[in-house]
Amino acid sequence: MSKDLGITARGDNYADWYNELVVKADLADYSAVRGCMVIKPHGYRMWELMQGGLDGLFKATGHVNAYFPLFIPKSFFEKEAEHVEGFAKECAVVTHHRLKANPQGKGLIPDPDAELEEPLIVRPTSETVIWNTYKKWIQSYRDLPLLINQWANVVRWEMRTRLFLRTAEFLWQEGHTAHATYEEAEQESLTILHKCYARFAEEWMAVPVLRGVKSENEKFAGADHTYCIEALTQDLRCIQAGTSHHLGQNFAKAFDVQFQSAEGKLEHVYATSWGVSTRLIGTLIMAHSDDKGLVCPPRLAPIQIVIVPMGRDEETRTKTIGAAQNLANELATLSYGGQEVRVKIDDREKESPGFKFNHWEMRGVCIRVEIGPRDLEAGAVPVSRRDTGDKQTLSLGPTTAGVLVDLLGEIQKDIYEKALAFREANTHRVDTWEEFAARFDGEGGGGFVLAHWDGTTQTEELIAEKTKATIRCIPLEPLHPGDDEPGTCVLTGKPSARRVVFAKAY
Amino acid sequence: MSKDLGITARGDNYADWYNELVVKADLADYSAVRGCMVIKPHGYRMWELMQGGLDGLFKATGHVNAYFPLFIPKSFFEKEAEHVEGFAKECAVVTHHRLKANPQGKGLIPDPDAELEEPLIVRPTSETVIWNTYKKWIQSYRDLPLLINQWANVVRWEMRTRLFLRTAEFLWQEGHTAHATYEEAEQESLTILHKCYARFAEEWMAVPVLRGVKSENEKFAGADHTYCIEALTQDLRCIQAGTSHHLGQNFAKAFDVQFQSAEGKLEHVYATSWGVSTRLIGTLIMAHSDDKGLVCPPRLAPIQIVIVPMGRDEETRTKTIGAAQNLANELATLSYGGQEVRVKIDDREKESPGFKFNHWEMRGVCIRVEIGPRDLEAGAVPVSRRDTGDKQTLSLGPTTAGVLVDLLGEIQKDIYEKALAFREANTHRVDTWEEFAARFDGEGGGGFVLAHWDGTTQTEELIAEKTKATIRCIPLEPLHPGDDEPGTCVLTGKPSARRVVFAKAY
Repeated sequence: MSKDLGITARGDNYADWYNELVVKADLADYSAVRGCMVIKPHGYRMWELMQGGLDGLFKATGHVNAYFPLFIPKSFFEKEAEHVEGFAKECAVVTHHRLKANPQGKGLIPDPDAELEEPLIVRPTSETVIWNTYKKWIQSYRDLPLLINQWANVVRWEMRTRLFLRTAEFLWQEGHTAHATYEEAEQESLTILHKCYARFAEEWMAVPVLRGVKSENEKFAGADHTYCIEALTQDLRCIQAGTSHHLGQNFAKAFDVQFQSAEGKLEHVYATSWGVSTRLIGTLIMAHSDDKGLVCPPRLAPIQIVIVPMGRDEETRTKTIGAAQNLANELATLSYGGQEVRVKIDDREKESPGFKFNHWEMRGVCIRVEIGPRDLEAGAVPVSRRDTGDKQTLSLGPTTAGVLVDLLGEIQKDIYEKALAFREANTHRVDTWEEFAARFDGEGGGGFVLAHWDGTTQTEELIAEKTKATIRCIPLEPLHPGDDEPGTCVLTGKPSARRVVFAKAY
Repeated sequence: MSKDLGITARGDNYADWYNELVVKADLADYSAVRGCMVIKPHGYRMWELMQGGLDGLFKATGHVNAYFPLFIPKSFFEKEAEHVEGFAKECAVVTHHRLKANPQGKGLIPDPDAELEEPLIVRPTSETVIWNTYKKWIQSYRDLPLLINQWANVVRWEMRTRLFLRTAEFLWQEGHTAHATYEEAEQESLTILHKCYARFAEEWMAVPVLRGVKSENEKFAGADHTYCIEALTQDLRCIQAGTSHHLGQNFAKAFDVQFQSAEGKLEHVYATSWGVSTRLIGTLIMAHSDDKGLVCPPRLAPIQIVIVPMGRDEETRTKTIGAAQNLANELATLSYGGQEVRVKIDDREKESPGFKFNHWEMRGVCIRVEIGPRDLEAGAVPVSRRDTGDKQTLSLGPTTAGVLVDLLGEIQKDIYEKALAFREANTHRVDTWEEFAARFDGEGGGGFVLAHWDGTTQTEELIAEKTKATIRCIPLEPLHPGDDEPGTCVLTGKPSARRVVFAKAY
């Protein structure tokens, strides 16, 4: 591999490795607009596959899609006290609706005569504008539940940005549901957590996730409580991959959304909201990829199999390309994960086989099939797995395509198992402050640390100050027997109800 | 039908009919944000089906999707002279990136310390930000063609808005391609026009469209020339349903995008751009619907078949609901247009059959199947077509589902044929100014008028002033033999190369 095609090794500089991989694997690029990214076709294809998987899970659990305005009147933010604190700070503010020629010189200026009476905020999240609409739609218990999702772009004016992980604009879905009772809303937020988000992370992304609830300090601004899924990256940090909020009656009260119950009483509606974003792409990269580039689980790989026909002369090339096309045609008759197998034949003449191998390894193609003239004569071809680098020789024939599809399933499973073993090896029960502090000492991430905590925000903040580790979640199920039994706080020694998960977070 | 469920008749007030239909058919709703609409789940489902159809056609013609930033720096607009004239006027201008508590009183204000150095424009279209990116991506002829599409929201600050037809924010797709030669770009813009847009309009939307080129006066700001598809509405106006622009080298020159040709010469790249939007939903409504509500071609109907089981007592209802479920299960094993058949069983207990019939007629369900106790005994059920109102009795049995799916195909075809006959009946060749003026006299739309025009913008504007009719397109193929032969201008008597299409436009 020529040096200029490669990327920094994870061990040398993990942050550089990530940044270079995102660009060199053709996933995303920086744009001229501060903090905004361009999602390149290869990366966008992965997002489309993610959307397809998630949308299917949302629809299977009874949700429908809709679309609400990009702009939120400033006054809407002012209605829910906690929400305004959390979201109305760093945001994009529209103040004018026209440009005009600059009377003092060149170019254009916002027309002073076209200043908006009320500034508009580009949505950082849509609770306010949606609950203002739900007020019109909800009158009776018969209008409930309302189970709506939206695929959209949102903007949060971040100071320090990183492609996919934290950008000013990003793509996401946001679900906003309305229910007659607290219990129904609770059930909904857990359905999303388990049946949609955790399932998608584990079965599509091959990323094992902790399912938990956030501490008061970390919950969504305006929520009663927030559920989350949390993943471990290879540099031993925690990445929040999705959140599902039980909003109680907070937004219904702020926007005065009441319904007549079956008993004829007027009551405020209960709400949930939940979202995952293009950050999932960053999560996937961080979980599986290596120093050669992207490693992608087959269910989300834009290209699952690349076939590289070889040969120096025209006649040989005609034969190997023909064999490649036959194999691709056979693969086209099969399906994997309910979809067509995604195959690419790389028959570029001007590039060497080595260049092509590196090219597709960087871009996360799961399986490579090489077809050279001697392979054709032998009736068997070398097949390489991207995830492990393992090579095997497969005989070419009517069963080859089926074997390759089975191999995709094996890779999907193995990538998950590897990530799970990695997480288990880097999850530690810690009982003393010395050990706790040592775990998070220095630049390293420290993994997941299960420790007792006295339940106060003060202690949580003190621990963060000393170690940069924060409470990522309070797990819904104990990770080990006894994790949910009482103990004493690792910092203060005060009583603790159960262990929680500490980690350094992205 | 109870009066309050109905809508104004087309003959009484076409504009009211349209506005009421959009809201009552659950397609869209007004929002609290000036000029922005809420697309309701039923309307959004139609948009998803449109997206699916179009996206398939784009991918089949070699395009891939990507995503570019929402914001465009003001200076980008200033680079292409015609484009700035057309698009940098009424737009949403972001000037601040933070809100803060109002020191003079209540609420929030844009923080004066957080004013942007350069204002950002919410994209009204993305040529500028995309060509600024293409500069990085294109160096050599080997990087060409670049065939990229984006699904996105855009904002144009419209003063007078109508749901789907003209709103400040709308959803659309915008293709942006780069080519080595003028001819290739020309071929691309025509491929989109014929193989994607016109095909989608006619085969999915069942709307016959004229394919033409715009006059200089009506072309896209920054284009060399603009192709379009144009449809006729039931009030005899013309609606522009899609445009495909050959941009020449205008944007490549404005953003200095050059490539090294195979011969080693540096040349500016040729470009196209093309888009269709949620306006297609308005076009579809205007083309087919009636005084009972939405009429939707089956390929784009959110629900294609509704089954209404009836019966006053529990025992009867159990039987009819069981039969409805059997039929739905059989339908689920079949496909139409390459997709699952979309079936709804309406077994609400508290609503009358008449209420349900009106409910689903308003929402454009293509076929209604009623299952009453006597129908079950007779082994045959009444089946109604939404488009014609025709009823027939179908025997219930293993072939029923197949017959219904065939009927969907028939409805799709008939809706198209009806719209085509309507357009033909309302397309007129006109040779005198008296007849021309009379056609467009008064409030009516006037249909499509094929008349000679001297080719000048001055005459075009004079005709528009006198009649409100404008040139909608210069057809690529003559509608009748001789349409493309020379004649004399209907207003000035000067020489004309060929007839063009005049109409009052939406």
